[in-house]
Amino acid sequence: MEETKLRVGLIGFGTVGTGVAKLILEEADAIAARTGVRLELACVIDKDTASPRRVQLPDGLLSSNLDRLLNDPSIAVGIELVGGTTAARQIHHQLLRAGKHIVTANKALLAEYGEELYSAAVQANRCIGFEASCCGGIPIILAIRSGLAANRILGLYGIFNGTCNYILSKMTQSGSDFKTVLAEAQAKGYAEADPTLDINGTDTAHKLAILGGLAFERRISMHDIYVEGIERIEIEDIHNAREMGYVIKLLAIGQMNGDGTLSLRVHPSLIHEDTPLAAVSGPFNAVSIHGHAVGRTMFYGRGAGMMATASAVVADLIEIGLGSVQRTFHSIPMVSGRQKNIPIKPIDEIECRFYIRLMAKDEPGVVAKYGRILANHKISIRGAIQHEGRGPENTVPVVITTHPTLERNMFNALDELSRLKVISGRPVCIRIVDIPEDSE
Amino acid sequence: MEETKLRVGLIGFGTVGTGVAKLILEEADAIAARTGVRLELACVIDKDTASPRRVQLPDGLLSSNLDRLLNDPSIAVGIELVGGTTAARQIHHQLLRAGKHIVTANKALLAEYGEELYSAAVQANRCIGFEASCCGGIPIILAIRSGLAANRILGLYGIFNGTCNYILSKMTQSGSDFKTVLAEAQAKGYAEADPTLDINGTDTAHKLAILGGLAFERRISMHDIYVEGIERIEIEDIHNAREMGYVIKLLAIGQMNGDGTLSLRVHPSLIHEDTPLAAVSGPFNAVSIHGHAVGRTMFYGRGAGMMATASAVVADLIEIGLGSVQRTFHSIPMVSGRQKNIPIKPIDEIECRFYIRLMAKDEPGVVAKYGRILANHKISIRGAIQHEGRGPENTVPVVITTHPTLERNMFNALDELSRLKVISGRPVCIRIVDIPEDSE
Repeated sequence: MEETKLRVGLIGFGTVGTGVAKLILEEADAIAARTGVRLELACVIDKDTASPRRVQLPDGLLSSNLDRLLNDPSIAVGIELVGGTTAARQIHHQLLRAGKHIVTANKALLAEYGEELYSAAVQANRCIGFEASCCGGIPIILAIRSGLAANRILGLYGIFNGTCNYILSKMTQSGSDFKTVLAEAQAKGYAEADPTLDINGTDTAHKLAILGGLAFERRISMHDIYVEGIERIEIEDIHNAREMGYVIKLLAIGQMNGDGTLSLRVHPSLIHEDTPLAAVSGPFNAVSIHGHAVGRTMFYGRGAGMMATASAVVADLIEIGLGSVQRTFHSIPMVSGRQKNIPIKPIDEIECRFYIRLMAKDEPGVVAKYGRILANHKISIRGAIQHEGRGPENTVPVVITTHPTLERNMFNALDELSRLKVISGRPVCIRIVDIPEDSE
Repeated sequence: MEETKLRVGLIGFGTVGTGVAKLILEEADAIAARTGVRLELACVIDKDTASPRRVQLPDGLLSSNLDRLLNDPSIAVGIELVGGTTAARQIHHQLLRAGKHIVTANKALLAEYGEELYSAAVQANRCIGFEASCCGGIPIILAIRSGLAANRILGLYGIFNGTCNYILSKMTQSGSDFKTVLAEAQAKGYAEADPTLDINGTDTAHKLAILGGLAFERRISMHDIYVEGIERIEIEDIHNAREMGYVIKLLAIGQMNGDGTLSLRVHPSLIHEDTPLAAVSGPFNAVSIHGHAVGRTMFYGRGAGMMATASAVVADLIEIGLGSVQRTFHSIPMVSGRQKNIPIKPIDEIECRFYIRLMAKDEPGVVAKYGRILANHKISIRGAIQHEGRGPENTVPVVITTHPTLERNMFNALDELSRLKVISGRPVCIRIVDIPEDSE
């Protein structure tokens, strides 16, 4: 078979850009032998042309002038690794107008401006490869788009944020609290100086918008997703969860409900220690996808990092070289317009199990009081722990897990509980997610 | 976008064939909306046209006459689900001569006659899709071929046989012995009436030949693979392993060694309980792939079953409809002839850690005797357990784990140990596999 040549230009020479340049420069021969596609790095565009990077570019490749890429008709693909949504959005439009295909790792941009960019790509008859935008090196977009294409997707459960997963794993292992572990993670480079978008769940929601859109064949906007971060997870809750056979993860959840609605949410979740996702620790990501035919699957790997993300970028380049992305991109329902009309279920109508921790005064009649409130809101207790011993102000911590109940009921019950005099403060409440088993 | 129509004929109307017919008949509209490919089931060929199946075919679709498929020029793909290697091999040649692409789940056929069939496909300018031949519904061939195509694969570690994994998981959970659990598995349909090819490791080796061939870009014959089954795993070893923090799995291993050789082996393996593969239990399969860029990945799902395998077959059909398999198949090194020239390392030259259980006479000087033999063969002890208590004939079980040593040394040491009068019988010896961590 003859080789196909593909000339590409890189925009953004940061960590991932360095990895991509390295992979193309060092592996072009091996990749050509393996796939029949010969990648050629035509140029690297970055404002900063001076700082040293962990790869040696051939002379003359690095430039600060984007026009060099846009005006070179021999370049078929622009790789956008600029990040952010302002300049990157403009660059996407410039690339498409110049007739280039795009490969990008920019999840925020696609989650927020996907509709606009997909339309522009269709208009320009070009494609956007975005494997690298979700879960780093895990080929999850390929899996949903192609490997599982025979399936109606029933559920998607993901650990999408390495920073959060690292923090929660570390809290579990070391027993240190959130702030201590976050500071440690920042020192080690596992968390950004400003980690807000990671720990408040936004980054996870971006990925859920993209992957959920593919899996459920429907455009998903950020407003469709309920989001809660991990800022308020306390070490006691991690210990209690463990004692009851659970671990706490920041989970992205997309679920088709029995009534034909879709629920989309990101929140800290107790998951049973025996589910495969529970074993995903540290900076790793994983996605469990349940298809109506295939049953339960899981995909696991590094969710970020220079070479792992570069692996996904280069995979997209190879697929473009083979002509595959051009075909599959335009048949994606959220691109082709053949979307399903699935209503989103609001969070307060979702049924869920809950973990509750409340600080009860150590005096007679307390159990009866909170028990009555729960019962009045149709919340049935499934498990409970009250260790002997004492908290501040003569209180004892009581931990309760519930049977499934409506979010709305739980919210109302929490309100009432916090007004009880025998309970100090507002109870802590974390959702329990029972990831369905499949049965064949 | 316009739809692409793809007419397919099915050969073999057993369990998986039924699943494929069901998926195509029930999901054609949904698949067309999702992918742009409209699948049409043109005929189903099986000797048995009378038995009831779990799907209702439209009138006139079922036939015992293969010519109906071969002579119909509107049919682009023949799906071979006959199994076995004799009739199936002939059918593959007939399909290729008739100008049909092939989709198959037949791992034994590809592992043993892959070379011949790939050449025939190249000659006929047709492709063979074989996603369903390995690990049922897990899109692992797609992952290696496309998703991880930017990587040099350094290692591949797989749990490929659901029967073995079910048996080992069940022994671990229930404490019952191999024979009891096998009988149970047969009663439940998790093991075949004649389970030989499953439990002796042959089925796992078939899959390693196929996936290893893709991953390491080299044709792999069954002779290249060292194979040991799980027939001799005893419940005591499972317990001992557990006590030391390991679980026992039948593992397929493909590893690039530091000296540029490749080792390929299938054998029961102690793996650390914290590795993600250790959590794969029951009939599930999983494959961990380590790429030089992506690091450690894992893919998990049902390795067999009607609908899971059908999911993979139909995925291949869709890819053929999109034109992807046609392109990627011919660029597979073991098809294109652009193979790497990697020597296989013989098993006795492999370095490995070992678990040894020996029955030692309960008398003075025993430790010194077996200790000396191990030392003479350059085998260094890493851990040991000798519980108080007694086995038959005044013996005590001693469990030892070693540091890495050559297979050859261990084999020679076992020979000498079995000749020691203070040791009763030949010691049990199981390899310990330390799946490498990645570090970025």
